Amino acid sequence: MTRIMTVASPAQETVLFHADIENRSAPGRVVLVCEHASNHIPPQWGDLGLEAQARQAHIAWDPGALALARALSRQMDAVLVHAPVSRLVYDLNRAPDHPGAMPAQSEIYAVPGNAAVTAAERAARTAAVYVPFHDDLHIEIARRIALGLAPVLITIHSFTPIWHGVARAVEFGVIHDADDRLARHIVERSGSIGLHTELNAPYSAADGVTHTLRLQAGPYRLPNVMLEVRNDLLSTPLQSEAIAERLAPVLMAAVADLSEGA
Amino acid sequence: MTRIMTVASPAQETVLFHADIENRSAPGRVVLVCEHASNHIPPQWGDLGLEAQARQAHIAWDPGALALARALSRQMDAVLVHAPVSRLVYDLNRAPDHPGAMPAQSEIYAVPGNAAVTAAERAARTAAVYVPFHDDLHIEIARRIALGLAPVLITIHSFTPIWHGVARAVEFGVIHDADDRLARHIVERSGSIGLHTELNAPYSAADGVTHTLRLQAGPYRLPNVMLEVRNDLLSTPLQSEAIAERLAPVLMAAVADLSEGA
Repeated sequence: MTRIMTVASPAQETVLFHADIENRSAPGRVVLVCEHASNHIPPQWGDLGLEAQARQAHIAWDPGALALARALSRQMDAVLVHAPVSRLVYDLNRAPDHPGAMPAQSEIYAVPGNAAVTAAERAARTAAVYVPFHDDLHIEIARRIALGLAPVLITIHSFTPIWHGVARAVEFGVIHDADDRLARHIVERSGSIGLHTELNAPYSAADGVTHTLRLQAGPYRLPNVMLEVRNDLLSTPLQSEAIAERLAPVLMAAVADLSEGA
Repeated sequence: MTRIMTVASPAQETVLFHADIENRSAPGRVVLVCEHASNHIPPQWGDLGLEAQARQAHIAWDPGALALARALSRQMDAVLVHAPVSRLVYDLNRAPDHPGAMPAQSEIYAVPGNAAVTAAERAARTAAVYVPFHDDLHIEIARRIALGLAPVLITIHSFTPIWHGVARAVEFGVIHDADDRLARHIVERSGSIGLHTELNAPYSAADGVTHTLRLQAGPYRLPNVMLEVRNDLLSTPLQSEAIAERLAPVLMAAVADLSEGA
């Protein structure tokens, strides 16, 4: 059953959904980002016409990704910038003109509240969710550049073990945009972590999934990478902590490799 | 004589220098930017150790560029985003780690207040001047993308007729970064405007002058160009208006050419 949601007009919309930032004063080079940390749908978007089960599913967020990112933030002494709002309201890893920014369909789920997003509503969500998040992330990056910290951008995602009925074998995906330096160092060092690791899997930049890398790292030529962990490996906080303990040394070594190669 | 300036620490610094925005609701595709519109040095930076003459010179701003940009904004029905602060405090067309962002030397002038900028001061100016300006510009661009307006970024600059004692023959410079589509259309159409026009002169992206294009247009693959007019052609508001009347039809036609080629 499709329910009607309430959508504020741009004129009425005054709430800005700023990024949640943890470990802001961390001295490490790495800036961690988790664009799909939350499945929260703020009241002004109702429930987007979805049942509770769908609002808990991977279409609404990346389950386990925030716990993993937080564990990495502690273990790597890195700032973490994460999303306060579900990607069904606005997928922060998509540009404002990308259909997937407010998807009308996500895997097997139709999203009724996104079935007919007007240009004005698209602009309102962009102003309320996309711009504040990316501007807050930009502040963190620009400050580190100004301080001479040579920041490195790493985005943390999770993916579902079964997609359109097909099981995915990959457990740890390392995805790059135009600059593949960091991704290749990570894959080279991943032999010992005991995870089925692949470069540019379960998808790649060609699928339009590297917007944050392109927006935030590209203009400054910062080393950058998008990491994807299969979400059945992140079912509990303990599991996420354990995966972080395997990944953090590899990531730290790969970041150090950047300086060796420079 | 070098005078001491007062520099606020990051903790004390609370003033943010937001962009000045004119013609915000203009329906045109073009977003005009003037990063060097102002020679204003806010009180917290004193006079940067410069005499009044130097603070009026081209090292502090692009004389005539704002008048030209305003005339273009009216004639092309385009939003205009311009700087409230001198480029000697922060050159908005430079990344925070670029020496030219807070230049210690500019052409024949030493800038005493920039002779020993600490990392903390660099971060403070970045937070106070660079980030607010570019985030304000980002809002304008993101909104237009969300609305499906297919924005085009054009930055407006002026250059000095004599540089280190050598006269420059070029009158109108058309400079591109990685994407040369719009620049080439403009040069192709510039035959009738009666200005000595050159591509990538008096300097080019290799000189590090295309930061705004790279930051704001690059991630979205928006057509973009940096325009430079010799400032002796912009000595009075009437002159600037007259130059705008010559350039506007060429720019509008070149933007239309983008759709032809698409």
